[in-house]
Amino acid sequence: MTGILAGLRIVEGSAFIAAPLGGMTLAQMGADVIRFDDVKGGLDNDRWPITDDGRSIYWAGLNKGKRSIAVDLRNPRGRELLTALITAPGEGAGIFTTNMPARGWLAYEELAKKRADLIALNIIGARDGSAHVDYTVNAITGFPMVTGPVDHEGPVNAVCPPWDLAAAYAGALSILAAERHRRMTGRGQKIVLPLQDVALATTSALGYIGEAVVNDVDRPRYGNEIFGTFGRDFRTKDGRFVMICIFSDRHVDALAAAGGFSEAFRKIEVETGVDLKSDAGRWNARRQLIAVIEPWVAAHDAAEVAAALKKAGALWAPYQTFRELAADKTNVAENPMFTLLDQPGIGRYPVAASPMQFGAVPRQPPQPAPLLGQHTDEILSGILGLPGHEIARLHDDKVIGGPR
Amino acid sequence: MTGILAGLRIVEGSAFIAAPLGGMTLAQMGADVIRFDDVKGGLDNDRWPITDDGRSIYWAGLNKGKRSIAVDLRNPRGRELLTALITAPGEGAGIFTTNMPARGWLAYEELAKKRADLIALNIIGARDGSAHVDYTVNAITGFPMVTGPVDHEGPVNAVCPPWDLAAAYAGALSILAAERHRRMTGRGQKIVLPLQDVALATTSALGYIGEAVVNDVDRPRYGNEIFGTFGRDFRTKDGRFVMICIFSDRHVDALAAAGGFSEAFRKIEVETGVDLKSDAGRWNARRQLIAVIEPWVAAHDAAEVAAALKKAGALWAPYQTFRELAADKTNVAENPMFTLLDQPGIGRYPVAASPMQFGAVPRQPPQPAPLLGQHTDEILSGILGLPGHEIARLHDDKVIGGPR
Repeated sequence: MTGILAGLRIVEGSAFIAAPLGGMTLAQMGADVIRFDDVKGGLDNDRWPITDDGRSIYWAGLNKGKRSIAVDLRNPRGRELLTALITAPGEGAGIFTTNMPARGWLAYEELAKKRADLIALNIIGARDGSAHVDYTVNAITGFPMVTGPVDHEGPVNAVCPPWDLAAAYAGALSILAAERHRRMTGRGQKIVLPLQDVALATTSALGYIGEAVVNDVDRPRYGNEIFGTFGRDFRTKDGRFVMICIFSDRHVDALAAAGGFSEAFRKIEVETGVDLKSDAGRWNARRQLIAVIEPWVAAHDAAEVAAALKKAGALWAPYQTFRELAADKTNVAENPMFTLLDQPGIGRYPVAASPMQFGAVPRQPPQPAPLLGQHTDEILSGILGLPGHEIARLHDDKVIGGPR
Repeated sequence: MTGILAGLRIVEGSAFIAAPLGGMTLAQMGADVIRFDDVKGGLDNDRWPITDDGRSIYWAGLNKGKRSIAVDLRNPRGRELLTALITAPGEGAGIFTTNMPARGWLAYEELAKKRADLIALNIIGARDGSAHVDYTVNAITGFPMVTGPVDHEGPVNAVCPPWDLAAAYAGALSILAAERHRRMTGRGQKIVLPLQDVALATTSALGYIGEAVVNDVDRPRYGNEIFGTFGRDFRTKDGRFVMICIFSDRHVDALAAAGGFSEAFRKIEVETGVDLKSDAGRWNARRQLIAVIEPWVAAHDAAEVAAALKKAGALWAPYQTFRELAADKTNVAENPMFTLLDQPGIGRYPVAASPMQFGAVPRQPPQPAPLLGQHTDEILSGILGLPGHEIARLHDDKVIGGPR
């Protein structure tokens, strides 16, 4: 049983989110993804959240299904081994992804000397090569100044890093595009993907730069409301929160049915002259809509609200904490994407496979993340053909790490 | 001059963000992406932000570089035309992406009758086919309960929709994976990508479910602080905000150099016993770090703070509004990714090309979004080979729309 990308091999030199998540995405699609790290572990080796005894749950989450090779990155012999691995022959091999500084021995030009058709993705922070991470890029986009409670002063940072996620998937996409190009032309190439430009291109795509220039406005904070249509949070009688949205005609009718609002909605249309079946109508009459919906939600427990909204087919969801999510049967335990997995050194918990369901190949169940250097020997032997005594000497000389 | 995906043709039936942005990503990489809409426009035709005269800046942002065909989607002849377009012959054709309900005439099984090797990506909301959008999916993930000011009660919604972005790029990736598979095996397939599962898989990857289960904690709100290392916003003397982070050894030294904190940082290490060069050390001593950095930022204007941080190579960024971003020379006007573009019906503003820089092909400058039905005639003539008089009759019969 193999995934859709069976036959591809990608060598990854990475840390943090964008590059590792991009690699993991390809690994969960069936590619052989080999992450290399220094024998002491990468920058993200101990990244939080960690277990009580200091093992990184973060690292385990972002490196599932990869093989790990640990090499002394300062040792010339170690660098030689990795160069050989990155540029090893094979139709589906010769693909490198990194967010490390791609200079010196890791520069494209150096690596391409050993394999002319190499594909190398270089995820960088700023366009000019200076440091930028999701949290600094996000400050520049403008989103923190419109996120959070209406009366809040100053920025509100994202906890979920949107630009790392976008760059991870966009990076994986760029690798497949280059691999397609190589298949058709025989030529490899270097790809540069600045996190900063991923964020700016997306901010442009979402219309924020156009709005600022054409309408010459700074969109204010709208708190939890969805700009330009209807959606916001409501508090139930038992102190829970639900998100309720209207994105289409059907959602207006469903919400009306759930709460018995048909008459009230008609009254809003008559009194304000808006059409609730249009985005603009819902947005312009949002205060009136809230005045109808809020008391109904506040008068019922979460379970009652949920039952009514669900039955009517409304567009809604309950808010929950991460612990509630983990215990949420529909979304986790009974979701075929999740498997209860033993992650060595960390514990047993539900872990997700790829969210993509390909008709031609069954979804591969998730695999644990490797231990640091877990596959050092099998990679050196299986791909580079190093004999056992040479591998043993490399261990003795501390050029490589991992169990022997 | 052609893009990396020249030769691919994708037909898109979409609305909102995930499917259109995925299609636009492929269009900006050089694929011929044809979006079809009902003659009256799709669900997102008037989506906000809009101009003073009601034209959607949102739509223009998410559909750049595509061709548009407008067809009466309820008319059997209109459906026949689109079926023929989706299943038209050609090695790089026969690819369909949609977030419309893929039932009836748009069901994979129906379309595949006309082209057995069809690739169809179906982006759905919930796994079970029920309605879910970014804002409802986000409620379930847990992120809104840890986002926003520490003293805030209740959820804080994301303004930037992380799951739509992830699904857009993941969807485009899944199409290239299936196209690769078709090239190798000759077989097409249906791909299902639930927005809900994209969000849950990513939440799993980022370690939140593992942390909740293994450590049995609900991570509290940490406001604008980056969990597990050092990063937060600071206010300057002139009332501006900057994000300052430390992600590595180098950033500790750079920040110390920028503010003259070397001695103070050493003192923190001595007094608290932490190592500021470790994530855990920075996180555990964050109150002490803030006590050193905050007064320095507060005593200087934004320009002075920026100059010092930049000179030292610290990991930082200024917060800005969307209007400030639009006027930000470094990030927009002088960024080669942006082009000042005339978007018909909307105006002239800077628009982004793809953030991906492929070494083998020059980056294609961004193209405007089409007007609704702008390419109806050329598509029917050029791809389906319809003669002029038949196209004219289809216009007369209101089966198709757009300029004639």
